[in-house]
Amino acid sequence: MCAQLLSTQPYKGTRDFYPNDMRLRNWFFGVIRNVLETSAFEEYNGPMLESLALYAAKSGEELAGEQTYNFFDKGNRHMAIRPEMTPTVARMVAAKMGELNFPLRWFSFPNMYRCENPQRGRLREFWQVNVDVFGCDTYEADLECIVSAIRLLRAFGADSSMFTVHISNRRFFNDVVSTIANTDMEGCRKISKVIDKRKKIPREVYEQELLKLGMDASQIEKLDSLYSATVQEATALCPDSVGSQELLHLFDMLSRIGLSDFCAFDFGIIRGLDYYTGTVFEVFDNAPENNRAMFGGGRYDNLVGLFVNNAKISGVGYGMGDVTLENFLNTHGLIPETLSKRKVLITRFSDVSYEHYMALSDKLYNAGITSSIYLATKKFGKQIDYAVKENYSHVIIMGASELEAGTVKIKDLATREESTVALDSIEDYFKA
Amino acid sequence: MCAQLLSTQPYKGTRDFYPNDMRLRNWFFGVIRNVLETSAFEEYNGPMLESLALYAAKSGEELAGEQTYNFFDKGNRHMAIRPEMTPTVARMVAAKMGELNFPLRWFSFPNMYRCENPQRGRLREFWQVNVDVFGCDTYEADLECIVSAIRLLRAFGADSSMFTVHISNRRFFNDVVSTIANTDMEGCRKISKVIDKRKKIPREVYEQELLKLGMDASQIEKLDSLYSATVQEATALCPDSVGSQELLHLFDMLSRIGLSDFCAFDFGIIRGLDYYTGTVFEVFDNAPENNRAMFGGGRYDNLVGLFVNNAKISGVGYGMGDVTLENFLNTHGLIPETLSKRKVLITRFSDVSYEHYMALSDKLYNAGITSSIYLATKKFGKQIDYAVKENYSHVIIMGASELEAGTVKIKDLATREESTVALDSIEDYFKA
Repeated sequence: MCAQLLSTQPYKGTRDFYPNDMRLRNWFFGVIRNVLETSAFEEYNGPMLESLALYAAKSGEELAGEQTYNFFDKGNRHMAIRPEMTPTVARMVAAKMGELNFPLRWFSFPNMYRCENPQRGRLREFWQVNVDVFGCDTYEADLECIVSAIRLLRAFGADSSMFTVHISNRRFFNDVVSTIANTDMEGCRKISKVIDKRKKIPREVYEQELLKLGMDASQIEKLDSLYSATVQEATALCPDSVGSQELLHLFDMLSRIGLSDFCAFDFGIIRGLDYYTGTVFEVFDNAPENNRAMFGGGRYDNLVGLFVNNAKISGVGYGMGDVTLENFLNTHGLIPETLSKRKVLITRFSDVSYEHYMALSDKLYNAGITSSIYLATKKFGKQIDYAVKENYSHVIIMGASELEAGTVKIKDLATREESTVALDSIEDYFKA
Repeated sequence: MCAQLLSTQPYKGTRDFYPNDMRLRNWFFGVIRNVLETSAFEEYNGPMLESLALYAAKSGEELAGEQTYNFFDKGNRHMAIRPEMTPTVARMVAAKMGELNFPLRWFSFPNMYRCENPQRGRLREFWQVNVDVFGCDTYEADLECIVSAIRLLRAFGADSSMFTVHISNRRFFNDVVSTIANTDMEGCRKISKVIDKRKKIPREVYEQELLKLGMDASQIEKLDSLYSATVQEATALCPDSVGSQELLHLFDMLSRIGLSDFCAFDFGIIRGLDYYTGTVFEVFDNAPENNRAMFGGGRYDNLVGLFVNNAKISGVGYGMGDVTLENFLNTHGLIPETLSKRKVLITRFSDVSYEHYMALSDKLYNAGITSSIYLATKKFGKQIDYAVKENYSHVIIMGASELEAGTVKIKDLATREESTVALDSIEDYFKA
């Protein structure tokens, strides 16, 4: 016993999911899967490892660089552990462009890795639901994504007092910023980076950075007015922009289908990823303690073109992480107290041969009744303790006398009622 | 468009799961989850990344060395992408030894990575179901694992003509080999490595290696006789071995509960991993084209001791990979022809404003009827083509005249029947 002991802790920023944690995760992924499948989205999945080049192309410097776990494999390929799912799904769509029937409605529950310092709502390993529509160039796909995001949160019991979808548009952003700052696309991109981080930096740093990019005080003031503008006020600044029209159309439709209460125009929504081209949105918890965006997404019209020359397949999608979702549900008291189901423990006595318990267990299994035999030989009281601690709802007692009589005793651990039941009537007992 | 295009292919040895593939995977993991939950196993999960040291300790040289993807993180920790799940679950059990209620019945569906050359039944990334019982030192846990493995395959419709559980015991192996070869534990371990690979090497190499380990021709002959021995014949060679008694007890119980047809004693079953201490088993497809073990497992009594001094928590478990399972199900024709469910496409006409389709889609969603709106603006015929190709079972037609009449037409794509249904009766139509 002199060998050094190994640590029992999971790797920093990753989680062990014990059965209680897993039950919770399965519950919320089950709710999400049900919403998406009922909305005719289809599930896909892809590998954890991808070529690093996949992210270098369009994910933006921060994500593709420092934040991505990467290494060289034996064949000297520079591999990445996926930090996000969109490049994978774009690759998959590109690979089968000719066979797939567009529009596609796809979702996935991938896990992701990012090597950053863990903090509230951000871990190194997290799970996401990723939802995408491919092959629809018009607002319906944007709407579809926003509607499904709202459906997801409502399926957990959330209402419009608890969260808001903040919406902007990259085309509008570029048009309005190039007008205000009198700059080109590259200038807009640089300004967008400053706006993206403005809530994390002091106001004076924000201003200095914009001044450095060639903006003057009055232009900065004009930008300021946009942060609190309504979609009508904002789009009035460049009415001819395609982005303005897209925004107006989207908000009009959201209002017609009764979802205005869930949505707000927000000029400050940038999305850090470089691939977005149109609508962008983030969902915020209205509770102040969860001030980070819960999840977000947008339209990316050119991703498939990274793989296939001149391929024009547009995508709109979003990802929602399990960590922020759990924080949200906890904050608003939306997690049910118990997720346990009926579960029967077959207790054991030393004077009954084990095959009789196995036969009983088979009988329950074949009837679809969840059960197990107590797998140790402790006293009856300890077996009951075990049943209670492990959330069994019932115990079955079959000693020598019951076996001889062809009966069992069934004890309901919630009501503490005990019934004597014929072996052949156990199924009926549980059906009742 | 001069930038180099990225490859659309997934990384060698990994798979993209398109919706059709994913539906199949979800189907078989659903069947498995149902069997295990009905058998009162509880799901857990752990991180993809673990310290490499976790595998170096007990997984055996081949797996912990060459076959494991590994790299140094920014903090210079030597990390591994998990090549198997057992060390993770042992770590998790060790971390909460004091709080957990033993015996534990746990399962998981992890994905794993191994950097080896892809071949039939073996890929670089694969999914597994891992099933373990912790904290039961006696045969009941071994039996529980074997029974659940048989239940899993039977749940897919497999019977005893299609697969066999080959069973041996490490304690028995050590006792019988040390008797035959007159050697110590280390000698047994070296001989076990030769036996483990004997089906992959020529007979003469097998003999040469055993001779090199100090065995003589008559000892090798004695070993030979074991490969075809029954459990009674084999255990008669060392009747006092605890391993012999364990084997006899296990086979006796398998016979009493009617599972003899599914099981066979097989001295040649070694399991490559160094941590096994008692019962070991592998499940073989009886079809000759799948001659590799489909899955296997065994008892490992000392793994938790790697983390906690003098901790004695025994484990028994097995893992079954998705690739070999799929091969098995395919070979025996056990995959249903269709896994599609009812799914309704709402077709679109340009003279009906989109919010009416959105309202209809909401109506269906709220009734739990899977549907989507066709997200493009192609002609009606193209919309029907899309519905057929994407496995929709029904289309709903709502043009201006239907809208005015407060009705829709519903077309059943299987029977080609078309019905006119009042908007308020759509739910009833689908319930009928």
